[in-house]
Amino acid sequence: MKRIGIVDTTFSRVNMGQIAIDALKAFGEGIQIERSTVPGIKDLPVAVRKMFRERNADLVMALGMPGAAEVDKTCAHEASQGIMQVGILEMRPILEVFVHMDEAKDDKQLAWLARRRTEEHAENAYLMLFHPEKMIERAGQGLRQGFEDAGPVRE
Amino acid sequence: MKRIGIVDTTFSRVNMGQIAIDALKAFGEGIQIERSTVPGIKDLPVAVRKMFRERNADLVMALGMPGAAEVDKTCAHEASQGIMQVGILEMRPILEVFVHMDEAKDDKQLAWLARRRTEEHAENAYLMLFHPEKMIERAGQGLRQGFEDAGPVRE
Amino acid sequence: MKRIGIVDTTFSRVNMGQIAIDALKAFGEGIQIERSTVPGIKDLPVAVRKMFRERNADLVMALGMPGAAEVDKTCAHEASQGIMQVGILEMRPILEVFVHMDEAKDDKQLAWLARRRTEEHAENAYLMLFHPEKMIERAGQGLRQGFEDAGPVRE
Amino acid sequence: MKRIGIVDTTFSRVNMGQIAIDALKAFGEGIQIERSTVPGIKDLPVAVRKMFRERNADLVMALGMPGAAEVDKTCAHEASQGIMQVGILEMRPILEVFVHMDEAKDDKQLAWLARRRTEEHAENAYLMLFHPEKMIERAGQGLRQGFEDAGPVRE
Amino acid sequence: MKRIGIVDTTFSRVNMGQIAIDALKAFGEGIQIERSTVPGIKDLPVAVRKMFRERNADLVMALGMPGAAEVDKTCAHEASQGIMQVGILEMRPILEVFVHMDEAKDDKQLAWLARRRTEEHAENAYLMLFHPEKMIERAGQGLRQGFEDAGPVRE
Repeated sequence: MKRIGIVDTTFSRVNMGQIAIDALKAFGEGIQIERSTVPGIKDLPVAVRKMFRERNADLVMALGMPGAAEVDKTCAHEASQGIMQVGILEMRPILEVFVHMDEAKDDKQLAWLARRRTEEHAENAYLMLFHPEKMIERAGQGLRQGFEDAGPVRE
Repeated sequence: MKRIGIVDTTFSRVNMGQIAIDALKAFGEGIQIERSTVPGIKDLPVAVRKMFRERNADLVMALGMPGAAEVDKTCAHEASQGIMQVGILEMRPILEVFVHMDEAKDDKQLAWLARRRTEEHAENAYLMLFHPEKMIERAGQGLRQGFEDAGPVRE
Repeated sequence: MKRIGIVDTTFSRVNMGQIAIDALKAFGEGIQIERSTVPGIKDLPVAVRKMFRERNADLVMALGMPGAAEVDKTCAHEASQGIMQVGILEMRPILEVFVHMDEAKDDKQLAWLARRRTEEHAENAYLMLFHPEKMIERAGQGLRQGFEDAGPVRE
Repeated sequence: MKRIGIVDTTFSRVNMGQIAIDALKAFGEGIQIERSTVPGIKDLPVAVRKMFRERNADLVMALGMPGAAEVDKTCAHEASQGIMQVGILEMRPILEVFVHMDEAKDDKQLAWLARRRTEEHAENAYLMLFHPEKMIERAGQGLRQGFEDAGPVRE
Repeated sequence: MKRIGIVDTTFSRVNMGQIAIDALKAFGEGIQIERSTVPGIKDLPVAVRKMFRERNADLVMALGMPGAAEVDKTCAHEASQGIMQVGILEMRPILEVFVHMDEAKDDKQLAWLARRRTEEHAENAYLMLFHPEKMIERAGQGLRQGFEDAGPVRE
C-alpha cells in the first residue's frame, strides 16, 4: 500500500485534483489517496510539505494552471522552485503538473490538455512508486505528458 | 480559536492591513488577530516568520503593493520567494496578497482592487483554517481575487 | 540598549556606512553600533550573518550601490536574495539600502540620493526597534525612502 | 571502489543514462554504478539526493535534455538550482549534463552531442573521484564538453 | 596563520587559480593555500563548501570565466546563488572572482583582465582576513577589480 497526496487549486479552470484521483484509482487497490485544495500555485509548496509531514504521503502530485500574463509566469517559476525545495527537504518525489493557459488554443483544448497531462502524470506516479525499473526502460524515449511524444533520436 | 497574523507595509498606498482585519472580524469570534507593519515587501518574510515564532500565528496574510517599474518587479519576485521559503520552513500557510500598481487604470481603481483582493483572501484564510473541505469543493472553479472570476472550462 | 549592525561596500561611490552611523547617533544614547565593510554587494549576506552571530546585532542595515549594467542588476538580485535568506534564518530584521546608479541623473544627485535614502532607512531602523506601533500608524501611507513619498490613494 | 549514481529522464530524446554507464565502465573495475530514471529534469534534484542518501553514491551524474521553448529554459534553470542545492546540502559533487535541444542543428547532431558531452563528463567524473590532481593540471585550459575546446588565452 | 582556499575551473581560458596563488604568496608567510579544480562554475559551490569543511579554509576565492551566450549568463547566475548560499551556511567569506568573456574586447585583454581582477581580489582576501579595519577605510571609494576604479561622488 502506497499513499499519494493530491494538491490542487481553486485558481485552475479544471478540477485537476479529481481527474488525478480518478486516474490513480484505475491502477487498482494498492493506492491510498489524500487530497487538499489551496487558492493558487504559490500556496502549493506548503500544502505539499504538509501532505508529507501530516498525512504521510509517499509521493505528491502538485496540480495547477498558471495564467498567460508575465506576472503569472513569474508566479509559476516561484511555485516550481518552492515545490522543488520541498522535494529536496523531504527526499520524496513530487510530480508538478502545470498546464499553462497559453499552451492551448481555446477553452476546450485547455480542458483536454489538463485532463490528458494529469492522467499521464498519474501513470508516472504509479510507475515511480510500484515499478521504478519500468521508468529506466523508458529512459531517453522523448516522452511528453499531454501533447504528442517527441520520440527518440539517433546518430 | 485560531490566530491570524497580518503583516503589511508603509510603502503600500492603501492600508491593506486594516482592511484585512476588518474583513476577518466579520467571520466572527473564533479569530484572534496579530499585526505588524514593515517598510516594504522585502521586509515581509522576516516579519512573517516572527509572526509564526513569536506570536504563534496559525496562518499569516502578507500584504503589499509592488510598484510598476522593472526594479519593483524584481523586488516582488524576491519577496515572494522569501515568503514561500518561510512557509516551507514553518509548514503553515501564508496568503501573499500583492496588488501591483500597474494592475489598476487609476488611483481609485487601485484602492478598490487592494480592498477587494484583501477581502477575498481574508475569506480564503477563514476557509483554509476552519473549513478546508469547502476549499476542495471550489477546486478548478477558476476563482480570482480582486477582478472577476475566470470560471471553469469543459472539453 | 539595542545593537545595530552597519555593513557597506568599497564598491559604493558614497560612504553610506558613515552616513548611517551619523543618522543613527542622532536618535540618542540607546543605540550601539557595529560596522564592517566588504568589497561588493554580493559579499553582504555573509557579513550580515556574522553581524548577527558574532556581534549580536538586533537589526542590520545592508548598504550598497549596484551599477547600471545588466550584470549589475543580476548581482543586486543575487545579493537581495542572500540578504533575505539571512533574515529568514536569523529571524531578525535587515534593512537593505540599495541605491542603483541609474536612479540618479548625475553624480551630485547620486550622492544626495544615497544620503537621503540611508537617513530615511535609519529612521525605519529606529522605529522598528524602539516604536513598532508607530510603524503600524504609517501602514499604507505610500512612503518612499530617498525620492518623494507616493502618498495614500482612496476609492 | 567508488560509487557513481546515474539519473536521467524519459523526456530526453537520447538514452543518456546508458551512454554514461558505458563510458564509465571503460574506466575499469573500480566503479560501481547505480541508476534511476525520472520523468523530467525538474524531478532530478530529488532523485539525485536519494542516490546519495539511499544508495550511497560518491558522485552523481544528472543527465537531461531541456527543450527549446521559453518555458523549457525556465525548467532547466529551476532544475539546475535544485541540483546545485542538493550538492551543497550533501557536500558531494554532481555533474549536471544538460543538452539543450536548440544547441544542435538537427536530430542527428543532437544525438551526437548528447553522447559526446555525456562521455566527456564521464571522464570528469572519473578524474574528480580518482585523480583530482589531474583536474588541477587542466585548470584554465578552456575545456568544453561536447563541442570543440575553446583553449587557453594569453596576454 | 590563515588558510585560503582556491577553487577554479577547467572551463576558464586562464589559469586563474595559479594567478591567485602567486598573488597571495606575495603577501608573506602568514597564508596557507589549499587548491582544487572543477569542470565549470556550477561545480564551484560544492567545491567551495568542501574547502571549508574538509580543508578548514578561513576564506575561499571562487574563480571562473562565464561564457558570452545567454545560457552562460544563466549558469553564472546559478553559480553565484550557490556560492552565496554556501557562504551563508558556513558564515565565512567567499570572494567570487568571475570574468565574463564578453567583458574583454579580445583574447589578450581577456587574459589581462582575468589576471588583474584575480590579483585585486587576492588583496581583498588578504585585507579581510588580516586588516578588516582597512576595508572600512576604503568604504564608499568606488573601487573596482580589474578595470579602473569609479571613485567617490559628492553632493
